[in-house]
This record gives sequence, structure tokens and C-alpha cells, in this order.
Amino acid sequence: MTSPPAVSIRLPTASCWGSPEMTIEAATGGAARRRLRLGMVGGGQGAFIGAVHRIAARLDDRYELVAGALSSDAERARASAAELHIAPDRAYGSFAEMAEREAAREDGIDVVAVVTPNHMHAAPVRAFAERGIHVICDKPLTHRLEDALELVEVVRRAGIVFGLTHNYTGHPMVRQAREMVAAGELGTLRVVQVEYPQDWLTTRLEESGQKQAAWRTDPARSGAAGSVGDIGTHAFNLAEFVTGLRCESLAAELTAFVPGRPLDDNAQMLLRFGGGARGMLWSSQVAPGNENALRLRVYGEKGGLEWAQEQPNLLLHTPFGEPPRIISRAGAGASLAAAHASRIPAGHPEGYLEAFAQIYRDLAEQITARMESRQPDPACLLVPGLEAGLRGMRFIAAAVESGRNNAAWTEIGH
Amino acid sequence: MTSPPAVSIRLPTASCWGSPEMTIEAATGGAARRRLRLGMVGGGQGAFIGAVHRIAARLDDRYELVAGALSSDAERARASAAELHIAPDRAYGSFAEMAEREAAREDGIDVVAVVTPNHMHAAPVRAFAERGIHVICDKPLTHRLEDALELVEVVRRAGIVFGLTHNYTGHPMVRQAREMVAAGELGTLRVVQVEYPQDWLTTRLEESGQKQAAWRTDPARSGAAGSVGDIGTHAFNLAEFVTGLRCESLAAELTAFVPGRPLDDNAQMLLRFGGGARGMLWSSQVAPGNENALRLRVYGEKGGLEWAQEQPNLLLHTPFGEPPRIISRAGAGASLAAAHASRIPAGHPEGYLEAFAQIYRDLAEQITARMESRQPDPACLLVPGLEAGLRGMRFIAAAVESGRNNAAWTEIGH
Amino acid sequence: MTSPPAVSIRLPTASCWGSPEMTIEAATGGAARRRLRLGMVGGGQGAFIGAVHRIAARLDDRYELVAGALSSDAERARASAAELHIAPDRAYGSFAEMAEREAAREDGIDVVAVVTPNHMHAAPVRAFAERGIHVICDKPLTHRLEDALELVEVVRRAGIVFGLTHNYTGHPMVRQAREMVAAGELGTLRVVQVEYPQDWLTTRLEESGQKQAAWRTDPARSGAAGSVGDIGTHAFNLAEFVTGLRCESLAAELTAFVPGRPLDDNAQMLLRFGGGARGMLWSSQVAPGNENALRLRVYGEKGGLEWAQEQPNLLLHTPFGEPPRIISRAGAGASLAAAHASRIPAGHPEGYLEAFAQIYRDLAEQITARMESRQPDPACLLVPGLEAGLRGMRFIAAAVESGRNNAAWTEIGH
Amino acid sequence: MTSPPAVSIRLPTASCWGSPEMTIEAATGGAARRRLRLGMVGGGQGAFIGAVHRIAARLDDRYELVAGALSSDAERARASAAELHIAPDRAYGSFAEMAEREAAREDGIDVVAVVTPNHMHAAPVRAFAERGIHVICDKPLTHRLEDALELVEVVRRAGIVFGLTHNYTGHPMVRQAREMVAAGELGTLRVVQVEYPQDWLTTRLEESGQKQAAWRTDPARSGAAGSVGDIGTHAFNLAEFVTGLRCESLAAELTAFVPGRPLDDNAQMLLRFGGGARGMLWSSQVAPGNENALRLRVYGEKGGLEWAQEQPNLLLHTPFGEPPRIISRAGAGASLAAAHASRIPAGHPEGYLEAFAQIYRDLAEQITARMESRQPDPACLLVPGLEAGLRGMRFIAAAVESGRNNAAWTEIGH
Repeated sequence: MTSPPAVSIRLPTASCWGSPEMTIEAATGGAARRRLRLGMVGGGQGAFIGAVHRIAARLDDRYELVAGALSSDAERARASAAELHIAPDRAYGSFAEMAEREAAREDGIDVVAVVTPNHMHAAPVRAFAERGIHVICDKPLTHRLEDALELVEVVRRAGIVFGLTHNYTGHPMVRQAREMVAAGELGTLRVVQVEYPQDWLTTRLEESGQKQAAWRTDPARSGAAGSVGDIGTHAFNLAEFVTGLRCESLAAELTAFVPGRPLDDNAQMLLRFGGGARGMLWSSQVAPGNENALRLRVYGEKGGLEWAQEQPNLLLHTPFGEPPRIISRAGAGASLAAAHASRIPAGHPEGYLEAFAQIYRDLAEQITARMESRQPDPACLLVPGLEAGLRGMRFIAAAVESGRNNAAWTEIGH
Repeated sequence: MTSPPAVSIRLPTASCWGSPEMTIEAATGGAARRRLRLGMVGGGQGAFIGAVHRIAARLDDRYELVAGALSSDAERARASAAELHIAPDRAYGSFAEMAEREAAREDGIDVVAVVTPNHMHAAPVRAFAERGIHVICDKPLTHRLEDALELVEVVRRAGIVFGLTHNYTGHPMVRQAREMVAAGELGTLRVVQVEYPQDWLTTRLEESGQKQAAWRTDPARSGAAGSVGDIGTHAFNLAEFVTGLRCESLAAELTAFVPGRPLDDNAQMLLRFGGGARGMLWSSQVAPGNENALRLRVYGEKGGLEWAQEQPNLLLHTPFGEPPRIISRAGAGASLAAAHASRIPAGHPEGYLEAFAQIYRDLAEQITARMESRQPDPACLLVPGLEAGLRGMRFIAAAVESGRNNAAWTEIGH
Repeated sequence: MTSPPAVSIRLPTASCWGSPEMTIEAATGGAARRRLRLGMVGGGQGAFIGAVHRIAARLDDRYELVAGALSSDAERARASAAELHIAPDRAYGSFAEMAEREAAREDGIDVVAVVTPNHMHAAPVRAFAERGIHVICDKPLTHRLEDALELVEVVRRAGIVFGLTHNYTGHPMVRQAREMVAAGELGTLRVVQVEYPQDWLTTRLEESGQKQAAWRTDPARSGAAGSVGDIGTHAFNLAEFVTGLRCESLAAELTAFVPGRPLDDNAQMLLRFGGGARGMLWSSQVAPGNENALRLRVYGEKGGLEWAQEQPNLLLHTPFGEPPRIISRAGAGASLAAAHASRIPAGHPEGYLEAFAQIYRDLAEQITARMESRQPDPACLLVPGLEAGLRGMRFIAAAVESGRNNAAWTEIGH
Repeated sequence: MTSPPAVSIRLPTASCWGSPEMTIEAATGGAARRRLRLGMVGGGQGAFIGAVHRIAARLDDRYELVAGALSSDAERARASAAELHIAPDRAYGSFAEMAEREAAREDGIDVVAVVTPNHMHAAPVRAFAERGIHVICDKPLTHRLEDALELVEVVRRAGIVFGLTHNYTGHPMVRQAREMVAAGELGTLRVVQVEYPQDWLTTRLEESGQKQAAWRTDPARSGAAGSVGDIGTHAFNLAEFVTGLRCESLAAELTAFVPGRPLDDNAQMLLRFGGGARGMLWSSQVAPGNENALRLRVYGEKGGLEWAQEQPNLLLHTPFGEPPRIISRAGAGASLAAAHASRIPAGHPEGYLEAFAQIYRDLAEQITARMESRQPDPACLLVPGLEAGLRGMRFIAAAVESGRNNAAWTEIGH
């Protein structure tokens, strides 16, 4: 088999010390690359994902955190801001105040990161979008489908750049997988197997006062789904992102194994994709020995691909009738799409934070291009946005409905 | 966690050179251990599984092949017999003749191996069983459920020893997994994920004259299921064998991806087990890069287990809240059940043929004990038999029915 | 076996969403944690390791890059500085000028990162150290042992904080390995196997104009060793860091396989450690299929440990007579030393950049404590410094001497 | 890269159900293939390797065990023979008697397997060889080099077929590796890394009465080397077999870590090969967590190969500048040499016993051809014999001498 021309494979001269395509810090001809002014909603002391967003924003030096409404508790908000070098006058007590005052400043924020629990996404996103401030939002888009539908309209009308941190799409080898499928390397797809098992909710951790466990198992804050909303959406997004297919319907078995837990902690589904591919999705938070074992396997007429989050620098390519090949990030066989999302040489692992940072890096280019009234680098356009967010919400809604209906086939809609 | 007393863990003194429990060739106090007289139906020139059965029978030196009806083609039957050192007068043209004449001989066969295609199992099994000759039968039991039900009655009445070569149950670590579950090491089971992907039917191989592909994709010879009957049954059997649970119902999506193929080459199912465990099963013959990737994962309240056929000497044990442990056949942590099915030291891999041979070895003990009117060694009683055979047929029937009915939940029955 | 008390194992309540010991961004009680003012020597456009240092400095938000002498080419130095948001008046044409002027500023740099090629380490380190500016220096310490000996004296007299970026010591599981050995979990050590194969110099890449290949194979810029100095030092440092042993002598075979290459591209050595342990070290840049396959295996009377750079989140622990255990960063079995160097939950891989950042993070605490006249957090004291730098230089010198002397045993000295 | 014509790659039509090249039981046109009459010296009750030889002989049905001098203890010899169905008149009390009487019988043995401890190889080999009886001998050839030199002369004069069970050379992927190297797929070889760590002698097991540990650590029965003779020879043989190179000299560090043990339990060596390749060899019996972790890595100008005994069905091929490929036994990319040594489809693991049986199967063809005065199938000529046996003895002698001489370079000789 020869590589089809549609996939841009890097030449095998790439060494362990980098290749020209790697954009660890692209030269700009001596001009300082703009650092975007970033605000944050949520993410105060004790939060997890807020800190991840901040690292992601810092890593490639394209953002500067200058404002925040970091907590709904005023004292905590102030203290958190101080720890983060945010000036006191830009440490706000509410997102509403922040949106209003930042929009009014000459040097107001360019973009806001919304990192609150799910039920608190919609309001701040709307507030900033309506003031023309670009938005980076943690997933899922909202905690109810109806909110999501409304929000999408608002954001579209606002015309801002909107990115949803389905962070696994920032991995170089996920992007290469998508590129290879799109280029026809696997032929027509037939089978899509995706799973995301964890074990951290094997016992009733939410009773222990653990904050993450508490809100993620609470319908009021998480929405109608447990594992499905928290990690099943990542699996679903990954499957659609890589295959380019639309999942049309599903039959879902949702179970809450831990006594007293109101939301599913395990979900198993059959999937039907447009074009005839068939799939399975498994999400679980009660599978001992699994930490974050997100894994995607895709099979077509001509070959297969396999990727696993816990070893993200590798992509297994299995062309039918040939020995399997291990493609490594920035190694021989890595594509331009992978190189675009790489910082360091092959064999030096990049991980979760780098993939998260890639979302931020690509959005920085999108936002900067908008500000400079130019077309963005096309390689930076792969970031999930409103459409992916809505797909995720429809997926959750369909899964919950199917689960309540004895795993009956349920349309996902679009 | 301390090992619960119900599992017999070998002491860590076992060295790389074997331990007393290993039964590579158990001493018999100077008495020759009886070699059983074996006949074979099917398995002539060009067959695959017949040769595997013969190696399995030879490996532990408990059988001597002395008679055969190796092919329905008389000339081929004769030639095949000659190649196998079977005396000309015991090279039969039909199983019926063989059953009659062997039963009449003083030195007639003790046991027959039936290794014909699926639709040719029932008649010879009946013929030999009714003459009191013990039977080893390739799986699945028959090609139609109704035949299976009838056959079970016949064999039960005959009172013979009957073994079905669900060969994966012969692997030491599969047996240890079963023992650990039974001893409660995982607590109440919650999730059972099993899969058996292959890739050899990715293209329409049956058109090429390949004999195995031809009969395995032909409903007249294989039955109503393709991948489900050929390999899905192995996955199903493995799941029930290890968990000790009964799968009560399933929702199955059966697909024939290769144009013109009358039987499924891919199946995806949701499973509901007695006791509340939930599972998934995937069988595929169109997943490029998968050779025989049978894999079982089981999760309970207290831990998980994982076993993969392609690396059968290892068992991953993941007690919740502790680091995962890699238990190796005959290594530290291996149990008596594993030692019983081991021949050589840890780190020297045993494989497919040894597991197959274990079925033969255990059946030799069962048959010999019967002939000697004594109780068999209890460690030799794990071989799948009529009940497992019937479970397999019910599974196939339910999967096919569910598949025809838009993956509706279908009872498996018992 | 029960965990010996000397190792602080985290409780198994640590969830996938982090545990209190993780210091993703430790609360400071509402006070902004000091950001250190950082300068950089070397690392201008086209450099690799300079960009890595900058990411490492940014990742945990403890540094701000404010000054630089980024290139010996004035124009390039200016352009590079502009790209990095360094004010024009702090973009220097030489390290000497920078040292002088920054030392004179009220708001001058607290610390400088020296990231030039090996032969250009000593002079700038001395210049800054003598002015009381703390130093972070890329490895190896210098390109000649005699320079190193002199430099060590200078830096010791200066009394500054000095860190050498043997970045692999920043990996959480490397630190846990060290802690486990120190606590006696392996008993007395016997065997130390370490290797660092790469493949990027399999062909004569230095002829192609590739900048990294050019200086790393040039004795004038790299020193007397090729693979030994570039990667063998990492392997040596890792072995001594984890075992706590001192390697006393070695017998080294150095080979330049690629015709025309003046420095070794492959080295194989026998090692003798204090206390009687025996080891091997292999470094290679001509081993196709190896990217950065640094791997350490250590065996003692009671057990073994294995760690590999390409999968750095795992540590294999093999207590004798028990099943091997897979300890994962931040997972069950991870120690406090590992938690200290972790940012995100188990199963979300951290990689090369995070380990590099750990060196910077720990040095930030050391420097800050010095500035605040207090004792630093003891967990931050593991960063390699002068002693490790000198050990590395002695190792290189001994290996080169042994190599020239037909692999005769050669003392490493101390 | 296109496959060089000198390697016969099987066509990718090979399915999971076997391909024509597989010789599970090759058709012989209806003629019974001769079963060779086999005798055995050693291997009585309680022995390990004797039982392995018997399984190996049985597996492919080319031998029938008809005579034995199974123990030097007459009673034990008789009892062992009875258990193995050997007729009482062919159960001998000594090899000398057996050689004499079997040579005199019309239906005397065709071939004898010598499976005694090392110091008891030479005498029986000589006795049978001088009577024209073919010999299969366990490795190493003898326990002293001088005996080996003499024995080689005797056997050569006798003109018999002589096979030495360096069983790892029977693995399909080891043979493919050899074939690929010979065909130039790796270019000129540069680096050869081979190791064989175990852990079973980590403690002083020989004090416990364990029989295997006792003789293997006793110079009187094992020879002058411990781990070097027991497993180092396997590693050495594997390296020379695959590379086709001759190792010319070595520098060896031999250590006995366990107090009171007279022979080395750990050995580390530098190797120099003809043609300029450089290597390392490590054998250890005190490396906890290693069962039989024999592993070979070979690197040349154009690529590398890696094979590990514990996962013997795979061969990693790393062509420089291309993604690594996983070649599986009987899968896509497997060569004719691999197919020749395969019995069952890809993905169904074959293991230690099958590789051992391959030695027996190939020798059966060599012996049969000799008896039929025809040329043997060339594919069956790869079995190690006198030359390999002598190489092994020279290797042991050189390693012991070097070890006694502070790891000085020592010629291996030839």
C-alpha cells in the first residue's frame, strides 16, 4: 500500500530533535506574538478543572490571566484571584459584574474561560458572548438540552469565537487518526468501538465529602446523566471527531450500581452511524483498575486504527493484510496534523495538559485572526465548538431517554 | 487485602523449574497410566480442527488414535487414516459403520472425537453415545437449537462422559479467574465486557475457494449465525465460565458487512446477567489487525480481572484501591487451579494447543475414573459439557432472533 | 509484605479527581505566590532546549521571563527577545552585559537559565553566580572536566541556588523509585541495568545541515563524548539518583558506527557500584526504532523496580515471590514523593514537559525560601545540582578514557 | 522500502484458519509418515527437562518412545519406564547396556535423546554415536570444553545426525529474524543486545532440597559456570543464530550475589563480533520479577529487530525512518521460515513446547532423509548441532576465564 496523497506524511528525516513543522514556539519574524487577555469564571480554590485550564492557557504563552469571577463566594473569589496575580479591581464577585465591567474597559479581556459546574455554564457564556467577548467553555455545553439549544442561538448571533474543551481532540494522534480516516486510508468505516472506563466511583465516594464526587453525582448540578455526561460525552465526541460520521441512534443501558446513587455510574450502548457503521460505547466509573482508560478503535474495509488516552503518543494502524504499524507522535509516519499539535521530539511523551493546551493554542490563533481581520491558519480550526457541544447534549438526552425506555433505539437528532 | 481462604494460592517457593503441583507427567508409582483408545469422526486431509484435536490428544500421552471415519469421501478417509497410522481395518467410510464395528470389538475405542462441521455433529454423537462410547465434541454442540435439545436428552440417557471443546476454558489463568470470582475476590459482579474480534473475513474470502471460509459463512453448514456461532459462542462461554453467572437476556445487533455474505460477520450485544450484572459482547470477523483477540474483563465491587487469549499466561488482577497485579501462570500468585492446568515453569509460555490438551487431559481422567469405577480428581471436572453446549445454542438462537427483531431484548432461556 | 513505614504511601482514597497532596496550584491563603524574575542565556530562534526551559518555567506560573542574552548574534538576540515579550532594554547582546546590568537593576533578575551548547555553560554560570544571581543550567555541567571542577568551586563560594536540569529526576515515579530504594523496599541492591537508545543519528544527519546533529557530533562544542555525553549522562544520573549508590568504576566500549563521525554514537559499559552492585549502561544514537527509550531496572535482595521514560507515569514493582505490581502516578500505591511531583489525576498522563517543569517548580521554592530567609519545603530538595553535575563530568571523562584504553576498568573518582 | 527478494514473505491471503505453508500435519499422499523409534537417557521420575523432550517428541507424532535408561537408580529407571509404556525388556539400568542391546536389535532405536545433567552428556552421546544411532542432546554440549572438543570429533567420525536442543531456535519468529538479517533487511549489523534474566535463585533455593537448584548451582554437575552456562548459553546461541555473526571476544563480569553460592548467579558482558558489531549480554538468576525474560535486540544500518521469549509469537521490525511493525507468527508479514515452524493460525499462541517440538520435527526429517538416502527438506536444516554446541562451550570457557581475570577481553576461539 502506498500512502494516499490526501494525507500529508512528514518526511522521514524528522529527527529526535524536532522538525520544521513542530511549532514549539514558531518564529514570528521578531514581532511579539499577541498574548490574549483572559478572564475566568469559576475555578477558584479547591477546583480542579480551572487549574487545568490555566496551565493550558499558560503553556504556549498565548494568554495572560487578568480577570476572574472565580467563586460565587466573594471572599473565596478574592483570595483565589490574589493567589493568581489578578489585580484586586479585576477580581469580581459575579460573572455578571465581570462581563459588564470588562466589556467597558479599554483593556478588557479578549476571551473568557467558563469552568463552572455544568449547570452554571449557560448564563455566563451568554453574558460574555452578548458583549462580544470570545468564550472557551468546559464541556458539556450545558446541563440540559433545552438550555443548549437556546445558548447555541445566542452564541451564533453574537458571532464570537467559541471553543469547547473536548480536550482529547487536541492530541496529535487523535488528529492524525481523523486525517487518515478522512483521507480514506481505512476505506468505508464499518465498526466503531469506544469506551471510557474509570474506577473512582466504585464506592460511594460522594458521601465522603469529596467535592468532585459530590457534584458529579448530583442531578441538580450535573444534569440527567452521570457517567454518560461526565465521560460518555468525551467518548462520543472522540468517536464522531475521528470518524467524521454522525451517530444517528443508540440503544443504551444505564445503571447505577452503587446503592443510593441517583445517576448512572455505568452505561453500555449500541450505536448506529450514518453510512451504516455500527458501534458500541461503554462508560463506567465503577470498573476497578481503570483510571482514565478512554480508548477508540475504528475499523473499515481497508484497515483499522486504535488510540488510547493513557498512551496518547501512539497510534496503532492496522492496514488489512499488512503488519500493524505503531505510529508515534512526531516519529516516522506522523502526519502534518500531528506535527501541528506537537511541541517536542518523538519519544518524549506529551500528555493531557499539552492536548488541553492545544485547544487553547488553536483558539488563540482563531481569536487573533479575528482581531486582525485575517483568515486563521486552517490547521487551527479543528477545535470542537457549538456543533460538537450540541451533539454532546443530544447524545446525553438520547442516552437518558433510551435508558429509561429499556434500551429502546432512540434517535439522537441534529 | 489478604487472600480469602477459599482460593488456594501456591506458595511463593515455586521456582522457574516447576513446583510439585504441576502435573507435567504425574508419577503413578510405576504403573503405566492407561492410554485411552481414541477414534475420530471428521478431520481428514485439509481439515484444520481435526489436527488440533489430535495434537491435543497426544500432548499429554493419554490417548492413542486407533480408528477413524475421517472423511465422507471414502478414498480420502482411507488415505487420511493411513497417514495417521490407523490400521486399514479401522479406517471406516462412515461414522455409522465405525460406531457399530468399534462397539463390537473387544479392543474397541473408549472414546470418539467428533470434529466435523457443525451440521454434522448431532448424528455421530448420538450413534456413539447410544453405544456407550464416550464423546469429545467440537463446539458448537449442533447447528440448530432443536437438534441440541434432542441430543442432550440422548446423551444424558446414555450416561457417557461428554466433553465439548470450548478450549479456552483449558487455560490455567482462565481457571484461576473463575476460582477467584467464585471465592469472592471481586465481590458481587457488576460489569462483564467480552469481545472476540478477528479480521480474516474482512474481504470475501469465501469466494476464493478457501475451505474454512466457505463452510463458516454457509448457513447450511454453520447454522443461522456467522461470527456469533463461530466465535461469539466462545466469548459467551468464557464469560459464563469465569463469572459463574447466567446471562438471562440480550439485545443484539447482527451485521453482514461484506456484500453478499448471508451470515453476520459482526455482532454487538448488550447482556443482562442474573444478579444484576450488565455486559457487552462483541464478535467480529471484519476488524483489521485483530487475529484472535478474545478478551474478557470482569468488574465487581472489590476488584477486576482481565484476560486475553493472545497473551494467555497472564491474568491482570485489579483490586480496588491497590496497584494492579500481573499474575502469571505458575508464577507467584498463581492458584492451584492454574497449577493443575500448567505443564512448564512460569515465563515459558504455554498456548492454544496446551489449553486444548488440558480439555483432553481432564477428560482422560474423567473417563478413566469411570472405567475404574472411582471418583475422578475434582480438579478435572471443569470441562464444558452438555449444559455449556446447550447454553451456547440458546445464546446463538437468542442473538439471531434479537438481531432479526431490531436488537430487541430477547430471553436466552435455560 | 507490608509497606515499610519509611515510605509514605498515599491512602487509597485518592480519586481520579485528585487528592490533597497534589500541588496543581497550592493554596497560599490568599497571598500571591512570588513569581521569580527569570533571565535566559542562549535559547534564541531555532534552538530547541531553550523553548523547553521556557515552557517548564511557565507551566507552574512561578517565573516571569524578563531578560535575555538569547543569541551570540546580536540581531537574532533582539528578534528572539521581541518574540518573547522581553523589553528591548533587557534584550542583551552578551551574557556578560546582561549579568552586569541586571545585577545593577533594582528589579534585576532573580535567576538565570543557561541553555547554550555545552562548551558555553561555564562562563555565563560564573558571571551570574559571582553576582549572586541564582542559576539553572542545562546538562552536562560543562564540556570538560577541568572546567567543571573550577566552576564548582566558584559556584560554591557564591552560595547561590544552583540547579542542573537532569529533567528525568523530575518524574513522579522516578522520585518514588528513589524513595522506595532508600526505604529498603528492595533490600540491598545487586543489579542496575540502565539504557538510553535513540535512532536519530543512524545516518550521517550532521551532514544535512541539521543544527542539533551538527553541534552534538562536534567535539569542539559537545566535548570528548558523543552519545555518552548527550544521553549516557542522563542514564548515569538516573541510575545514581534512584539507587543512591555511587558508581565507582566502569569499563566502556565506545564506538562511532557512522563513517566519518568523530564522536561515539554508541557506548556499552560495565559498571561497579559501591556496596557491590553490578551494572550495565548502554547509550546509542544508532538503534533504529528507539526514540528516547531511557529505561532503568534495579534489582535487590527483596525485589525490583523498572521505569521507562516513554511511559513515565508507571512504575513496575516486583517484590520477590509476589505478583508484579503496576504503580501509577497519583494512583493507588503512589507515594507522597510522587504526589508532590504530580499535577493531575492518575490515568491522565503527564510527560516530559511536566517533569522538566518540576525541576523549575522545586527550584522556585528553593530560591524563594532563600529570598525569604526560611527553610525550603524538604520535598523540593531533590533537584540535581553541582554534585550531580560533577558526577556527570567524571562519568564522561572516565568513559572516554576507558574507551580509549580498550575498555579497561577506570575509576570514576569523586 | 520494498521487501528484498531474498526473504520469502507469505502472501497476505493467509487467513486465521491457516495457509498452505503451515505444516500442522502435512499430507503425505496417503502414506504413513515414519515414526522414529526413540530411546531416552535420563529423564526419570522427578526430572523436568526429560518430560519436556517427551512432549516435544510426541507433539508432531514423528517419534515413538520405545526404550530408556531413565535413571542411574535401577529401581527408579524401571518404574519410570513402566509409567511411560516402555516395555520391561527395553528399560535399561545404564546407557551403556542400552546402547549395546538396542544396536543389536533389528527393531532397535533410530535415535536417542540424552537429557541427563550436563556432566553426564558426553559418555552416552559417544556410546550411541559410535553405534550409528542418531543423537538429540540437551544443551550445553558437555560440562567442560575439553570434553566437548573430544566429543565433537567422535560424533563427526560417526557421521550421525546430531541435534542440540537450543530450543529457542525453534521459534518461528526467531527463524524469521535470522532470515531477515541474512537477506540484508537490516543492512550491516552494528549492535546486538541480548539478555536472559530470571529470578528463581534470588534466595538460596539450593539449600531447600529443590533438585533443579541443587545441581544447577553445583560445579561438579553443571561445570564452571552458573547462570552463564544455564541461560547465558541460550542468549549467546540466540544472538549468533539470528545475526549469523561470530562473537570473537568478550569481557565478562561474573558475580555470585547469594552468599555461599559457588557459581555465578549474574553475569554482564561486553561482546565483540566479527564484522565490527558490538554487543552486550546479561544473564541473571537474581532479578526479581523476571521469569524467563530472554530478549534479543539487533540493530543495523537499515533497521532493527526485537524478539522476546515470553511473547514469542511476535517480532518487532523497526525499519529506519518508518513506523515500527509488529509481525506475528502466521500473520501478515510472516515469512516462509516462520510458516515452516508454525502449526496453527495467527493469534493463537504457540509457545515453549511447540518451539521445542520444532527441533524434534526438523530432526525427524533429517534422520528420515538419511534413512531414506535422500536430501532433507532444506527448511529443516536450521537445528543447532555440534558447531553450536562447541560455540557454547567456548563461550562458557571464555566467560569464566574473563570473569576470573577482572573482565579482561578474552578470545572465544573457534
